[in-house]
Amino acid sequence: MAETFPLPPREAIASQVDTALAEDVGSGDLTAALLDEQLVSKAVVIAREDGILCGTAWFDEVFRQVDAETAIHWLRQDGDPISADSRLCEIRGSARSLLTAERAALNFLQTLSGTATVVKRYVEEVEGTGVRILDTRKTIPGLRLAQKYAVLCGGGANHRIGLYDAVLIKENHVSAAGGIASAVSRARQSVPHTQKIEVEVRDQAEVAEALDAGADILLLDNMSTEELRSAVEMINGRAITEASGGVNLETIREIAETGVQLISVGALTHSYHAVDISMLFN
Amino acid sequence: MAETFPLPPREAIASQVDTALAEDVGSGDLTAALLDEQLVSKAVVIAREDGILCGTAWFDEVFRQVDAETAIHWLRQDGDPISADSRLCEIRGSARSLLTAERAALNFLQTLSGTATVVKRYVEEVEGTGVRILDTRKTIPGLRLAQKYAVLCGGGANHRIGLYDAVLIKENHVSAAGGIASAVSRARQSVPHTQKIEVEVRDQAEVAEALDAGADILLLDNMSTEELRSAVEMINGRAITEASGGVNLETIREIAETGVQLISVGALTHSYHAVDISMLFN
Amino acid sequence: MAETFPLPPREAIASQVDTALAEDVGSGDLTAALLDEQLVSKAVVIAREDGILCGTAWFDEVFRQVDAETAIHWLRQDGDPISADSRLCEIRGSARSLLTAERAALNFLQTLSGTATVVKRYVEEVEGTGVRILDTRKTIPGLRLAQKYAVLCGGGANHRIGLYDAVLIKENHVSAAGGIASAVSRARQSVPHTQKIEVEVRDQAEVAEALDAGADILLLDNMSTEELRSAVEMINGRAITEASGGVNLETIREIAETGVQLISVGALTHSYHAVDISMLFN
Amino acid sequence: MAETFPLPPREAIASQVDTALAEDVGSGDLTAALLDEQLVSKAVVIAREDGILCGTAWFDEVFRQVDAETAIHWLRQDGDPISADSRLCEIRGSARSLLTAERAALNFLQTLSGTATVVKRYVEEVEGTGVRILDTRKTIPGLRLAQKYAVLCGGGANHRIGLYDAVLIKENHVSAAGGIASAVSRARQSVPHTQKIEVEVRDQAEVAEALDAGADILLLDNMSTEELRSAVEMINGRAITEASGGVNLETIREIAETGVQLISVGALTHSYHAVDISMLFN
Amino acid sequence: MAETFPLPPREAIASQVDTALAEDVGSGDLTAALLDEQLVSKAVVIAREDGILCGTAWFDEVFRQVDAETAIHWLRQDGDPISADSRLCEIRGSARSLLTAERAALNFLQTLSGTATVVKRYVEEVEGTGVRILDTRKTIPGLRLAQKYAVLCGGGANHRIGLYDAVLIKENHVSAAGGIASAVSRARQSVPHTQKIEVEVRDQAEVAEALDAGADILLLDNMSTEELRSAVEMINGRAITEASGGVNLETIREIAETGVQLISVGALTHSYHAVDISMLFN
Amino acid sequence: MAETFPLPPREAIASQVDTALAEDVGSGDLTAALLDEQLVSKAVVIAREDGILCGTAWFDEVFRQVDAETAIHWLRQDGDPISADSRLCEIRGSARSLLTAERAALNFLQTLSGTATVVKRYVEEVEGTGVRILDTRKTIPGLRLAQKYAVLCGGGANHRIGLYDAVLIKENHVSAAGGIASAVSRARQSVPHTQKIEVEVRDQAEVAEALDAGADILLLDNMSTEELRSAVEMINGRAITEASGGVNLETIREIAETGVQLISVGALTHSYHAVDISMLFN
Repeated sequence: MAETFPLPPREAIASQVDTALAEDVGSGDLTAALLDEQLVSKAVVIAREDGILCGTAWFDEVFRQVDAETAIHWLRQDGDPISADSRLCEIRGSARSLLTAERAALNFLQTLSGTATVVKRYVEEVEGTGVRILDTRKTIPGLRLAQKYAVLCGGGANHRIGLYDAVLIKENHVSAAGGIASAVSRARQSVPHTQKIEVEVRDQAEVAEALDAGADILLLDNMSTEELRSAVEMINGRAITEASGGVNLETIREIAETGVQLISVGALTHSYHAVDISMLFN
Repeated sequence: MAETFPLPPREAIASQVDTALAEDVGSGDLTAALLDEQLVSKAVVIAREDGILCGTAWFDEVFRQVDAETAIHWLRQDGDPISADSRLCEIRGSARSLLTAERAALNFLQTLSGTATVVKRYVEEVEGTGVRILDTRKTIPGLRLAQKYAVLCGGGANHRIGLYDAVLIKENHVSAAGGIASAVSRARQSVPHTQKIEVEVRDQAEVAEALDAGADILLLDNMSTEELRSAVEMINGRAITEASGGVNLETIREIAETGVQLISVGALTHSYHAVDISMLFN
Repeated sequence: MAETFPLPPREAIASQVDTALAEDVGSGDLTAALLDEQLVSKAVVIAREDGILCGTAWFDEVFRQVDAETAIHWLRQDGDPISADSRLCEIRGSARSLLTAERAALNFLQTLSGTATVVKRYVEEVEGTGVRILDTRKTIPGLRLAQKYAVLCGGGANHRIGLYDAVLIKENHVSAAGGIASAVSRARQSVPHTQKIEVEVRDQAEVAEALDAGADILLLDNMSTEELRSAVEMINGRAITEASGGVNLETIREIAETGVQLISVGALTHSYHAVDISMLFN
Repeated sequence: MAETFPLPPREAIASQVDTALAEDVGSGDLTAALLDEQLVSKAVVIAREDGILCGTAWFDEVFRQVDAETAIHWLRQDGDPISADSRLCEIRGSARSLLTAERAALNFLQTLSGTATVVKRYVEEVEGTGVRILDTRKTIPGLRLAQKYAVLCGGGANHRIGLYDAVLIKENHVSAAGGIASAVSRARQSVPHTQKIEVEVRDQAEVAEALDAGADILLLDNMSTEELRSAVEMINGRAITEASGGVNLETIREIAETGVQLISVGALTHSYHAVDISMLFN
Repeated sequence: MAETFPLPPREAIASQVDTALAEDVGSGDLTAALLDEQLVSKAVVIAREDGILCGTAWFDEVFRQVDAETAIHWLRQDGDPISADSRLCEIRGSARSLLTAERAALNFLQTLSGTATVVKRYVEEVEGTGVRILDTRKTIPGLRLAQKYAVLCGGGANHRIGLYDAVLIKENHVSAAGGIASAVSRARQSVPHTQKIEVEVRDQAEVAEALDAGADILLLDNMSTEELRSAVEMINGRAITEASGGVNLETIREIAETGVQLISVGALTHSYHAVDISMLFN
Repeated sequence: MAETFPLPPREAIASQVDTALAEDVGSGDLTAALLDEQLVSKAVVIAREDGILCGTAWFDEVFRQVDAETAIHWLRQDGDPISADSRLCEIRGSARSLLTAERAALNFLQTLSGTATVVKRYVEEVEGTGVRILDTRKTIPGLRLAQKYAVLCGGGANHRIGLYDAVLIKENHVSAAGGIASAVSRARQSVPHTQKIEVEVRDQAEVAEALDAGADILLLDNMSTEELRSAVEMINGRAITEASGGVNLETIREIAETGVQLISVGALTHSYHAVDISMLFN
């Protein structure tokens, strides 16, 4: 049976949907008047290409906000692979409501399925290596939590949500703080004891420095696969290893085989190809 | 001198930025404490690949909301072509503010430049044909107005913003209203006299029916180039012609050469590849 | 059977009601404590003078927000003529809720029926001429969509909702753009192809200029009936004709008989006399 | 020198203006693109008929929200009588901003001046009698505080703002509480000691009952002028006297001469005729 | 049977709860994933110490917002005395929902019961004297209406809610207005006739001045019990008397016995000890 | 020189202040009209008792929202000890603004200084032991971030902000997950790799189990000091140790001397005594 993934808070979903409807429906659907108020319709949602389904809760919420009487019966759930021409759900409700909600609802489904589908491709590339694929903060403005959820549906794992829930010490923090040791020590002082400290490092010297400073996680940034391999060896389990930089579908397998535990990939969320999904009226 | 494009209302930009900062900064940037509150930094924003710049107003607004004291000097403006390694702007302000704002600001710039860049590619394909490239309502939820603006920056034109500012009679409206003639007549009754009526048609019979019904614009949907050519001939200037369906970078030139006036392309806004842009601290 | 009119989006109604309740109930109804919490009451809403009913959805929403348990049974619907002493609806619910909601609910009903009633009077004046009566943007701040709906209930038609859904080129745009021709051509460039271009003209010379420029609609502003008549003749079906300026219940018939198709009237929405409506408890 | 009146809180004004701009400008002013972004204009605001000026703070706030650079110089202030053709203010700023803000700004000025002008007429009718003219809760939804302010500008006085800041025991409270005495005593128990208790009475018996119950204020509702005169005599200073019901410009003088201290008039705020005010560009 | 107290408007409660959940749950409960989505739990809420119960409506609202399916059965109601180890309510619902809502729900219950409990102690101290205990505006930011309600549950009475619903002329107003007489007379002019005028006085001279000025209520501030006694005598029923300043559980009885009618106590709401209340899962 | 502490995001402070002003000022300060609009005043803020200052940013924001022209000059800063009668700041601005803002501004200062003062007392009790004092999620609804900041000002440290930024596995999670080992392993799977896993344990068996499961932090709940001592010994540096339960000013020193590294104390934020602070006008 399919796994379920923890959705963002209901409020967050409701608010994203409210924004999407405001921008699409605005002062009112001009074409609503073309249909009799009483007319009831049935429709099916159909995938036009292969992918991973994601966004059913947003789709449902669009219809709930437009017309809570609409009935939606899902045949697939978030995280399921879908193939061209497969039926995703059946809908029954007021014809006006279906046409008013259609585009906003599909836009969420296409966008989030697009993200989940990209993620799945990366995850499949590293199959068998034990490496986890992580997202980054390079997300579409306004859809951070939704895309983080899509990453889970695609089989990836989440890095920090934002600047507030984890510490990643980058080059600029290090130089401002006067070195890795001092930056790590400052972080230990100022952040909750529940947080591991992650440090971005670019070469062997920095790896050594970060290990000495007691960093919990090392972000091995923009290293060649050889450099990665020797860094992993040098770290030897004393810190969690994460690779980033120059990662794409061509390079990720090789990177995964260097022994790093995690690979973070901006491309999971900063770009996507919408999965083609349509609503057909019967 | 470069053209300027009409931005969405300030409120809309401010609200999108507010949402983006809320999801990135949340209860506070944990790493801010690593930097002295007084430390002032300079940075430059640099393109890592070619594209069309878009989103400077959102970028500015992120900094305004994080720290209104930050000074930003742009070297390029929205709509300008940018090339790998070119400098886009120079920034000077509190180091804490720069690091807190960096990701949210870049996310807007990368996303919107990504959209403008896609658009430009389509526009270039039809160069010389006189055809205008239009967007659709297949946009990223929450970024409708921003993407519509990016379409202009890329050289495209806007179709309706949403369901409220223009009438497009689709297949489902037609069948619910009992035919094209009746749907058009119902629309003339119910929408402001300032609106042209656009009807989606799929074959010669529907073209004829729509022309008889007095449609102002015909959306020639999913027609082959031959069908398009004969439809254009048949319409013969009695209505504006717009093609849609099956449009991609391979097919668009051929479609443009059928004589249609407009081509609407979902791919302008439903998918994109973020333009790689970074902030470097000096 | 009575026609139904397309309501503004539910969100818009809910938000106007929320504002109205906030300003009336604020930190709480001080008199609520005078009534037992359990006390159930019945009431009827009665018209005290003749008019056109409008605003039942806002009335319902006030009660829904105050106490969703309240039952309301309408005997008339929006757009119906009502006469002094006729019963409009019957209500049953908590006595506290009825008294708390009464004023806010009636204020919507009185205001919007007031607008619909004014509109009806203008519409009746032009009966038989085929002319449509249009509203303008001179509306009560905060009630634009509600008043636009009341105009429909009174038998009028809507002009543009705001600056965003249609183009009306006025004198100031013309002089800034350097003439009607250049203003129209700039508009064709910048607005969606779905929009007709309307131009305000004040004399024969401008009528000619606007027709040459290809304007779709001519707003014949502040012309005498003779001027209107000769303008209509000159236009001869090449553009839609709309008259405005100096329109009141005394002048409108004469204007309508000049042959113009549309007359827009600021007085429909910028002023009104509230229809006297009360709630009686049994 | 002209008196100044206490404005509603800045937040309230800003929020009403924000709503008004959202409904007028929406996704953007389509005609803005007709004007060069750099073009600077001057304009004057001129009254087209006589009245009392009210709403300058709302007018200013519209421009502040559209474009904070706009300079406005007022020649008159709220509460001032204005006459046809008098200049109210001079404006200088971006031509685009002036045209975008114009309608929303004028709508506030026309609506609120309309209310102040009605009020002044009632106030003038009772001149010399010492009677104060009060508003009611019959206001335009969403403009309660603005209209209460307009009442002051017109020379009237405010009754309670809403259900939360004063106690008015009406017929329905009395019958639910089982008599005036019990209703008054319940109110004394439940409302802050800072509140006077006002009771609506309709005949001599109720006047007597309310006086016995210790009511602070008596609302003499729908009484003939004789009944009012004898009620005032009977009360003889033991409570504040307020008349209401059947009040219009024909009847108010006679009512005022019965000796009542206050007259509340629904017509001050439930209906109005917008004062005709225009903006002229130089 | 226990009395019921008038709750703040539903909107106010919903908004306070929304804020509390946003700050506790944020981007999502990380521990939710530890529990199966389907798991149903039962729990009881138990008092750990004696006090007065307050806040059940807020507690209910937290669960309604987190998961409207949760069933809550209250064994006590607001205003009831509760003792250590007594069961307050029984809950049944999704285990995830119970754990996510627990802390926010208990925080309201503990905070508001803490306030009600403090109030009750003061009320008990003055038992038999007929004096009413009043709150002040020294409340926890954001919880004004909630604490005002807790004061009623504890047996106290409310002073004004804020600056908008009653007039208290303080020392600074007096000196700015040029004396008590002029301040009172200015207030009579500017505030609704429904408002009594309260004046803060500090000695016999001011008492005399305020009585002459016709003040309705005298706030006897920071007087010794002797001064209070002689002030009460001097006032002799011509105004309502309220004592404040230097009030605590040691001094309040003595103050109450001076004959004042009301005592206002900042400590009711500016400080509190949370009542210890836990949720136990069975 | 005094240390500075990282404030919550500006938006959070602005929103708390906005709420506080809405509840205090509502539809307007009735006493504002007692003062001439032009009158300028000076005031000083003075402590009436000893404590730790906290909340200056909220105080400033209240004045900024009421009247941005007000000038405030601080003599002390957050975290500073203040003593009875010491001057905290000097203010100069419109008399109306000062009186309107006074209470809301002082309420923040008193509440947050109250929290910081309690914290300092706990911190002083453990001086020299090296133990850090932590807050909990038992905070005043709506003031979570503000109180977390006050904890820093008092010398304490922050535990997690809410359910979203750290993982604390409690008894109910353990029993639902079927044991500590399985709960920890589920957590490792589902939460970002940047998070340490904290487990609540109540006896030696659970300590052992949690260590085996690889917990990063052990919350030693409700243990006697002997139990704590032996737990610390048993853990022997393999996990971070935190004590909670039964902590008060009498017991905390003894607990701190058991060797635990952290002590979390609900009383830091769930109860407080407002520091008495007044504003004096010169």
